[in-house]
Amino acid sequence: MKLDKKGLLIVMSGPSGVGKGTVRKSLFERTDHDMVFSVSMTTRAPRAGEVDGVDYYFVSKEEFEKRIQEGKFLEYAKFIDNYYGTPLDIVQEKLDAGEEVVLEIEVQGAMQVRKKCPDAVFIFIAPPSMKSLYDRLLLRGTESADVIKARYDKACKEVVMADFYDYIVVNDTVENAADKILAIVRAEHAKLARCIDGYNEIIKDRKAK
Amino acid sequence: MKLDKKGLLIVMSGPSGVGKGTVRKSLFERTDHDMVFSVSMTTRAPRAGEVDGVDYYFVSKEEFEKRIQEGKFLEYAKFIDNYYGTPLDIVQEKLDAGEEVVLEIEVQGAMQVRKKCPDAVFIFIAPPSMKSLYDRLLLRGTESADVIKARYDKACKEVVMADFYDYIVVNDTVENAADKILAIVRAEHAKLARCIDGYNEIIKDRKAK
Repeated sequence: MKLDKKGLLIVMSGPSGVGKGTVRKSLFERTDHDMVFSVSMTTRAPRAGEVDGVDYYFVSKEEFEKRIQEGKFLEYAKFIDNYYGTPLDIVQEKLDAGEEVVLEIEVQGAMQVRKKCPDAVFIFIAPPSMKSLYDRLLLRGTESADVIKARYDKACKEVVMADFYDYIVVNDTVENAADKILAIVRAEHAKLARCIDGYNEIIKDRKAK
Repeated sequence: MKLDKKGLLIVMSGPSGVGKGTVRKSLFERTDHDMVFSVSMTTRAPRAGEVDGVDYYFVSKEEFEKRIQEGKFLEYAKFIDNYYGTPLDIVQEKLDAGEEVVLEIEVQGAMQVRKKCPDAVFIFIAPPSMKSLYDRLLLRGTESADVIKARYDKACKEVVMADFYDYIVVNDTVENAADKILAIVRAEHAKLARCIDGYNEIIKDRKAK
């Protein structure tokens, strides 16, 4: 029985290399929840096999910039020559329909969402150690030592942003991290502020007996 | 991996007849948690089969009143001629040892704990409907209509106390309620305020790389 009928906006974020994508993937392979993943919008060209509305919403640069001016992004960023963002209207529609919407975004984006949606749940995915974070960045590819150092420096700056989140979930194993996220979502729905209205409905006929 | 090394004090409460005891029993039949139950102290005589330190700590009236004066109760109440209370020192020892301590107490007692332990987690067990609460009070025994009415009136007053809790968990099924309590405990440990110290330990060597 659900006292809280509204959908939750769940913002999953964390430093580069922490494995946010892997945790998110594991979460969506499970069937014991009703969460949906928020598809990002981008101006970059679709790659082979990518489907519009599934992998990304693919739009033109003009359309993206028009949406920015209309305030239609929860968050957005420009990487090299392309924009990436979370469409506010689409997320809002899903929340209104009672869906749980998961965003998996960079820490800079999460800070933008914090300002627009203080009611969202902010989960920081943390590495079990700085060494493990460094090792993951090393394992990622065949980049030069300089590139890896730059990424690690970036991750070191992101790692201290945990302070601005509601929860810290250590990605020690992907299973553990996904379990904790599910527990957080369940617990958030049971929070007083989210369910007091539904509860007051239940008890309003108490004088009738 | 646990960032939060301290034990949680979990206060389970709710109106008379809501089934707190059944939920607590179900919780302690499960093995997927480390919670321990806080044994109450009482001045009433042990019944056949009751074991000191397991069912209750049985003490004399003098000892109980001495402990009250020394501030050694998290909460206590007097019913008819007997005292019942939660010994503060024993709970504190368990929390310090990192144990999760569950109190299952009346709403009046929970309000006392709120004042002494603002850091505890307060869970209100709610009925799925007022009718179900009334029916449970009816089913309890062979009491007269007057006694049942008095109990229901008391429950109606307790039901509005949910406002003072952190979470509301509906006892629609005992399994669901126990599941939600476990989720709340997991989520509470992941809360920023509870795990930021442990997290700062992890990231303090970030300059070393």
